[in-house]
Amino acid sequence: MPRTGRRPGAAGTKEKILAAARVQFARRGFESTTIRGIATSARVDPRLILHYFESKEGVFRAALGFPFDPGEVIPQLLKPGVENLGIRLAKFFFELWDSPAGARAHAMMRSVVSSDDAAALMRDFATREILGRLAQALELDHPQIRASLAASQLVGIAMLRYVVRVEPLASAPPARVARWIGPTLQRYFTDPAAIGRR
Amino acid sequence: MPRTGRRPGAAGTKEKILAAARVQFARRGFESTTIRGIATSARVDPRLILHYFESKEGVFRAALGFPFDPGEVIPQLLKPGVENLGIRLAKFFFELWDSPAGARAHAMMRSVVSSDDAAALMRDFATREILGRLAQALELDHPQIRASLAASQLVGIAMLRYVVRVEPLASAPPARVARWIGPTLQRYFTDPAAIGRR
Repeated sequence: MPRTGRRPGAAGTKEKILAAARVQFARRGFESTTIRGIATSARVDPRLILHYFESKEGVFRAALGFPFDPGEVIPQLLKPGVENLGIRLAKFFFELWDSPAGARAHAMMRSVVSSDDAAALMRDFATREILGRLAQALELDHPQIRASLAASQLVGIAMLRYVVRVEPLASAPPARVARWIGPTLQRYFTDPAAIGRR
Repeated sequence: MPRTGRRPGAAGTKEKILAAARVQFARRGFESTTIRGIATSARVDPRLILHYFESKEGVFRAALGFPFDPGEVIPQLLKPGVENLGIRLAKFFFELWDSPAGARAHAMMRSVVSSDDAAALMRDFATREILGRLAQALELDHPQIRASLAASQLVGIAMLRYVVRVEPLASAPPARVARWIGPTLQRYFTDPAAIGRR
């Protein structure tokens, strides 16, 4: 390919940073990746990364294409307590997927399923930013298992409703689907019997 | 590309048939696709298709890469009745994914998420061959919704356990994960309150 000599604009620079970040995060994991390391790899000033993405978490979320900031959303969902958390979480989830952000969620799911690197990023991100936050709020044994099981129900309903589009799940109003799966999420979160002893 | 003039072997012919079948099924749906139409498109004798795949259902399943024959498996799972169907289904599901067939299931999930054609095939197949069979055995209202919700829990746990590999789901013994989600499946199948009125 001939080089045009044109300098990339902000969009090009951002994409260069995110491409470098994806490689670093996937190879080293979140903890061992540094803004400095990403900057060196992308050949940009570290301050530019902070200017665009604010923090290492911000780069991480953008690299994954994650459609919302769990650091804002999850505390809000948890504010009224764990009672009715299942239905609140389900409603938020369907509002997100039914909004323009749903396309980003779909694209993210696509890359997670097709790329081991993206799956590694997602695993790191989900464990730390989503499941970890949810688990902290749960008052029962095995909070990490409980949060993961709830997440599995949400991911699965997204697959059938939005990706495979199986009826009647695909066309049902979001509030109705939320009522179908809300009690499942709630049971995982707060039913002592949901996680039996081995 | 230079043509070698070599005639394709059985594997090449099969793949040519499956490629034609994927296009026909995705464009026309299962009902309107014919063995003759696939044969014409693949430029083979229709009898060869039946020789390799036995029936239109057989071509369909092979085109999708589906790892088991629901026409055999689901009646077996249903034989003891709907009581304890949740845990039986969950155990079968994890045995399948933890077996060599798990790689095919993973590949299938990948193609369903990345290709609209594969998603259409899967929707058709799941509705007819899996959800339809399960729904027939359920004795409550809304059997199709009940079967789809159970499927969503299974698909989601596969995503977290085998694709994203979130802990502790990824490393837990299959029988234990089956006990975690079995009651959820059972509730969707047989709890009258699981599907509320609108």
